Amino acid sequence: MLAVVKSNTLDGPAGTEISDCPDPKPGPDEIVIRVAAAGICGTDKHIYHWDPSIRDSVKPPRIYGHEFCGFVEKIGKSANRPSIRAGDYVSAEMHVVCGECPQCRTGNGHVCNHTKIYGLHEDGAFAELVKVPASNVIKLDASVPPRVGAFLDALGNAVHTTQVCDLAGKSVLISGFGPIGAMAAAVAQHSAASTVVVTDVDAHALETARRWAAKRDFTNVHIFNTRDPREAEDEIAALTAGNGIDVVCEMSGAPQAVNLGLRVVRRGGILSLLGIPKGQSLTIDDYTKNVIFKGVTLQGIIGRRMYGTWQRMLSLLRAGLDVEWVVQATYESLREFHDGMARFDRHEALKVVFFPEGEKAAQARLAKR
Amino acid sequence: MLAVVKSNTLDGPAGTEISDCPDPKPGPDEIVIRVAAAGICGTDKHIYHWDPSIRDSVKPPRIYGHEFCGFVEKIGKSANRPSIRAGDYVSAEMHVVCGECPQCRTGNGHVCNHTKIYGLHEDGAFAELVKVPASNVIKLDASVPPRVGAFLDALGNAVHTTQVCDLAGKSVLISGFGPIGAMAAAVAQHSAASTVVVTDVDAHALETARRWAAKRDFTNVHIFNTRDPREAEDEIAALTAGNGIDVVCEMSGAPQAVNLGLRVVRRGGILSLLGIPKGQSLTIDDYTKNVIFKGVTLQGIIGRRMYGTWQRMLSLLRAGLDVEWVVQATYESLREFHDGMARFDRHEALKVVFFPEGEKAAQARLAKR
Amino acid sequence: MLAVVKSNTLDGPAGTEISDCPDPKPGPDEIVIRVAAAGICGTDKHIYHWDPSIRDSVKPPRIYGHEFCGFVEKIGKSANRPSIRAGDYVSAEMHVVCGECPQCRTGNGHVCNHTKIYGLHEDGAFAELVKVPASNVIKLDASVPPRVGAFLDALGNAVHTTQVCDLAGKSVLISGFGPIGAMAAAVAQHSAASTVVVTDVDAHALETARRWAAKRDFTNVHIFNTRDPREAEDEIAALTAGNGIDVVCEMSGAPQAVNLGLRVVRRGGILSLLGIPKGQSLTIDDYTKNVIFKGVTLQGIIGRRMYGTWQRMLSLLRAGLDVEWVVQATYESLREFHDGMARFDRHEALKVVFFPEGEKAAQARLAKR
Amino acid sequence: MLAVVKSNTLDGPAGTEISDCPDPKPGPDEIVIRVAAAGICGTDKHIYHWDPSIRDSVKPPRIYGHEFCGFVEKIGKSANRPSIRAGDYVSAEMHVVCGECPQCRTGNGHVCNHTKIYGLHEDGAFAELVKVPASNVIKLDASVPPRVGAFLDALGNAVHTTQVCDLAGKSVLISGFGPIGAMAAAVAQHSAASTVVVTDVDAHALETARRWAAKRDFTNVHIFNTRDPREAEDEIAALTAGNGIDVVCEMSGAPQAVNLGLRVVRRGGILSLLGIPKGQSLTIDDYTKNVIFKGVTLQGIIGRRMYGTWQRMLSLLRAGLDVEWVVQATYESLREFHDGMARFDRHEALKVVFFPEGEKAAQARLAKR
Repeated sequence: MLAVVKSNTLDGPAGTEISDCPDPKPGPDEIVIRVAAAGICGTDKHIYHWDPSIRDSVKPPRIYGHEFCGFVEKIGKSANRPSIRAGDYVSAEMHVVCGECPQCRTGNGHVCNHTKIYGLHEDGAFAELVKVPASNVIKLDASVPPRVGAFLDALGNAVHTTQVCDLAGKSVLISGFGPIGAMAAAVAQHSAASTVVVTDVDAHALETARRWAAKRDFTNVHIFNTRDPREAEDEIAALTAGNGIDVVCEMSGAPQAVNLGLRVVRRGGILSLLGIPKGQSLTIDDYTKNVIFKGVTLQGIIGRRMYGTWQRMLSLLRAGLDVEWVVQATYESLREFHDGMARFDRHEALKVVFFPEGEKAAQARLAKR
Repeated sequence: MLAVVKSNTLDGPAGTEISDCPDPKPGPDEIVIRVAAAGICGTDKHIYHWDPSIRDSVKPPRIYGHEFCGFVEKIGKSANRPSIRAGDYVSAEMHVVCGECPQCRTGNGHVCNHTKIYGLHEDGAFAELVKVPASNVIKLDASVPPRVGAFLDALGNAVHTTQVCDLAGKSVLISGFGPIGAMAAAVAQHSAASTVVVTDVDAHALETARRWAAKRDFTNVHIFNTRDPREAEDEIAALTAGNGIDVVCEMSGAPQAVNLGLRVVRRGGILSLLGIPKGQSLTIDDYTKNVIFKGVTLQGIIGRRMYGTWQRMLSLLRAGLDVEWVVQATYESLREFHDGMARFDRHEALKVVFFPEGEKAAQARLAKR
Repeated sequence: MLAVVKSNTLDGPAGTEISDCPDPKPGPDEIVIRVAAAGICGTDKHIYHWDPSIRDSVKPPRIYGHEFCGFVEKIGKSANRPSIRAGDYVSAEMHVVCGECPQCRTGNGHVCNHTKIYGLHEDGAFAELVKVPASNVIKLDASVPPRVGAFLDALGNAVHTTQVCDLAGKSVLISGFGPIGAMAAAVAQHSAASTVVVTDVDAHALETARRWAAKRDFTNVHIFNTRDPREAEDEIAALTAGNGIDVVCEMSGAPQAVNLGLRVVRRGGILSLLGIPKGQSLTIDDYTKNVIFKGVTLQGIIGRRMYGTWQRMLSLLRAGLDVEWVVQATYESLREFHDGMARFDRHEALKVVFFPEGEKAAQARLAKR
Repeated sequence: MLAVVKSNTLDGPAGTEISDCPDPKPGPDEIVIRVAAAGICGTDKHIYHWDPSIRDSVKPPRIYGHEFCGFVEKIGKSANRPSIRAGDYVSAEMHVVCGECPQCRTGNGHVCNHTKIYGLHEDGAFAELVKVPASNVIKLDASVPPRVGAFLDALGNAVHTTQVCDLAGKSVLISGFGPIGAMAAAVAQHSAASTVVVTDVDAHALETARRWAAKRDFTNVHIFNTRDPREAEDEIAALTAGNGIDVVCEMSGAPQAVNLGLRVVRRGGILSLLGIPKGQSLTIDDYTKNVIFKGVTLQGIIGRRMYGTWQRMLSLLRAGLDVEWVVQATYESLREFHDGMARFDRHEALKVVFFPEGEKAAQARLAKR
């Protein structure tokens, strides 16, 4: 099969090869899936550029990619998933957990002590076929077109970030309008948040946000450039009658954004923290004033709840959650991977999706199930 | 002033008189409000007909009515509400609580040990002026037109019933499509419930529900007559892939509806119970099977959270919650009270609203604030 | 091996035989455990007497018993439990769940759609050896002596019932001082409940409760006979300064006890409902007044959280939770099963424990691990 | 009356004078209390030494002190507290909130937008008489001896910090064994935490902790010096079977302690943050690894829940919570204030308590109520 491989020649972009690889064979508890569509995630960009941050996690040669959907090809002998059959339209949770640590044993596998990420620690989904543990396979239906199924892992991050409290009637700040931030904004708006504030420092991202809101007449969405945050802070204060934001979804990882969030969040409010800063450390400027005295909650977000986030995400999609618009570039073959990555790199597309067999073939397979 | 009074002649409908009464004067901690609009509630119907169930609570002569909005007329000397000024557009929570019992002292005034209901235990809002404790006044803005401000107390019941968990992505059953059930359905649909099932046994209510959903293209709303509940149960099972309903909002009080809810709710699901049965007692048919073995939660709902439900309700209205349609009859004067009650009695209108000075006058006052 | 078998001769007590049976062999995902100690549960009594309520669930010949501890004898080939080794001291959750339904997939296996109970639907633990799914095995340590390990399933019910909220500083009513009620009282007292009220209608149970509290100088424990509930209600009102009980743990299933709980619980309080009534139905006498207007929460309790309740239970035991006293009769062989059941039947012992090889042998095995 | 006053001579310790002041008179909504006992808090030390951190908040001349108990002397005319009478034994919440902001209106006054602290922004309790808003008065009973009533405000901080989750069966780390840390350790131990780890870097504090645990045979309490944190980390790992601490109560404000907490907390665990660092900012060393990837919750703690924390605290005391031992120095007159502060300064006493009329007089008043 054809696959996108981080090769042994560890010298930057040149180190990714689109090459023929042996078909994966399912172990007893595994399922092999024919990939219909797969999306590029920020982590993939780090792998592509062989960022120092990622080198400890990835041992080449490694097929990468961890957002995808497809059709069940082969099921391992003792895979205990009676609801899954060959030909089923599925996606998969690519965080593979131990099932044995105290967190896993209480339904909190998203904070497993021994998580392995497929597409990073094991082979992933930028390929015609991908092999995953049977337990991790998620059944989809026709309410999820393949171009959306292509990035459910990322949509799951967005949903998980917003899942820290009931957003209905709340004011929500999304700081960072990259792919996951964009989806979080859509989820918040769909989930009856009364006010959705989007901030970013990138003109292109802000423009995309503005077009998204304008096209849908979302009058409760407000978008601010926070390169100079003072004006945004004043506007947010006005929007919330001086009380502050109920829930901040921090998607950028920029220390400035975390600190802005702490300034504008209301007393007793919540910051849901998904964004990863460039350095490991992060300084909270006014810890006493903005964390302790404001009595706020900060919630670190990793992965997706297994599988509560998946159930919620699929229910939201079934009821009309609109996120397809984040796909701003598609390719009919994995052979164009370098081109797709270049566009992602240049921020020309929030989400880049590859259809290994072409999009129409994927749709046809879905139709004839 | 003109007011609707349950008079001393305790002989049924004849016992309600529209008569001149002295203007209320605010005590030190009270505020007097000029009523712009007031709605009929089911309880008012019981007062009107002098139902045995209500006789212990109401001591005539009593001005009734407890759903309204209006404009601040006079503020008592020591009313400690700096944000409220004469002329402000407001509503009021009509459950008046003690502030001293353990529940009140922890922000749970809705389950106060000593609640008094204005419009029942004290004079209410079917009048040109109404007097309430300063603490209970709620400021409104122009996002709430007077004909909606007229029934916020009831909308608060609906919001409180749905507040038992985050509805985003959940399947919700609304059993009973009277005025509060109708609003609960609108709230659930607005709050991103993935599936909203409405049941009733009354043809007119079902027809109203069907028209509501059809007009708005709510494809995730499903409406069933449960006079013979078996078919509805099969359909609900199909809609939820056999798993059952996540959250049942029981608005009817009918024992059959509570038991239906227990049969169709999923294991580990929630029943939020607002409806009041005709008799005091209620038999759960399959308590062992459907309460214990299913591990469900039953939540009794009374009043509205003070004032969390109000904040949420006003935020939802500001962000587009559409409930104005439940007003199906309006009157330009309190003098037509008997006619309005007759239509409410005949189920010709989910909500009947009176404008003591006329609707245009109310809108004009609102505009010129 | 020797085992206690509900035989085919379905004629009451005579239908239980202590007989030789083939040793169980582990399937690929199963573990066989040598039983060190096993306790009698109320359900076992129903099986013994072949109560109509149990006949649909048990298909003889069936080895019964579902509370036990022991030592790992054999591990199936593909049992994915790296932390479990032959010789380990263990117990097991005997509710075996599907792993596939929406509840199981979100860490709520205790409300699985397809639960099978070992010792009921499959062979159980009144035997020298018992076979269980590998996933269900729970590792114990020396803080759990075999005579306590013998009834962890029941202790888990008690812990689960009390887990509905944080009991520290709360007033708690335990209605029904059978074996699980007795343990729930011990758990509540250990968990810093400020007031623990125990009610029952049986003189022997009340006497046991009194001795338990007196011996330990538990001055915050109060015990009432509720055959005539009025006096108890007055006393409870006095104990809670007229406000009512925060949390009712209803362990008896008696409709009178549920209704008493609803009368004495505070507004906004919780009833955690474990007890199973004799009939399927249950009438709530004052539903409007005590469920709706009080705004209470009723929580059905089934099984134990998998495996959060187990973690909590073992932590409590490690930190000194004292429940060994509920064992009031022990036997050194399964051959004395009929005698043990007779004493359980006559309420002479809250908990009856069998040591198939004798208690000293069990302790010796534990010591030399 | 005699009072401890931060005087106008703003030159350090010399600036505190014990002098005669006019008796406070209650406003309409206020209550004047005769102080029976009052404790020194860390904030008082900052006022005493006129630390730059405190200068913006205190405007001399100011009577300080905000932890106390006493007897109701006079009640304002319109004080709406029917349960409070002259002579009652009481304490008071000294955070005075607006009652009007969105947090106050939903029972979250502890994060009010406009909190004033009596003893800081207004006159406080190091005096024979103190005046407070009627709403803030808390009734005590004989289960709280005056020497404990003297520091309920601080005990409330400790209880609030531990209130982030149900501690029963949990492992808890208390970092910082100052007065509030010491009380938090006692609360955690009393609340059935399975393991209580105490850390500090001060030899005297560690010795006090050791004596506290040893004297009471608390075998589940473990105490570590974290000057070199590596050993403590290894020990904590061993104590928690490698999984980490469930709940960290951070009482020190030291950045090293916050970072240690983040290293030793389990994935998905909680840090409850009360301690205030010397500088305003705080750097999290491994934000990505320890906040995001671990999925932890950080909860800022300010004040006490109004009045849920008070109810819980008083219930715990009634049921035997033992914190009297933190009082390590007492004085029979306010005239010895400088001496008491000197001992507090030298860390010779976790809690220093003054009895303006002497301890026996306070006990006598309590006895004869």
